[in-house]
Amino acid sequence: MRLRETVARNLRRLRQAKGLSQEELADRADINRNYVGMLEREQHAATIDMLEKLADVLETDPVEFFRRGA
Amino acid sequence: MRLRETVARNLRRLRQAKGLSQEELADRADINRNYVGMLEREQHAATIDMLEKLADVLETDPVEFFRRGA
Repeated sequence: MRLRETVARNLRRLRQAKGLSQEELADRADINRNYVGMLEREQHAATIDMLEKLADVLETDPVEFFRRGA
Repeated sequence: MRLRETVARNLRRLRQAKGLSQEELADRADINRNYVGMLEREQHAATIDMLEKLADVLETDPVEFFRRGA
């Protein structure tokens, strides 16, 4: 799925820009510690509820996860 | 969840702009007929795989589902 790749890339970029590990981001978003890694490896299709939680922690708009070429 | 409301509103708007019923959209996207209705009623958190399929049928970019105030 092309969108999984876009989301994975943006998630990693936004997480690293905040200086957070996958585990730190998961803890702050109150989601399973494996979930962030699975999204970044494109092994799981994120739900919009999860993207909303992650965007809140990353202080960004969920639309940023769908941005191409960023 | 605020994002569910945004997605629900945009999905309905984009679907109606194509003149498709919920069932027609579901059939063309090859997804369960109840799924579109559940998304539009905010009863289910869409996955990005589903949003990608729906965007393909609606000939739009998935980012349109996250647009606010449209």
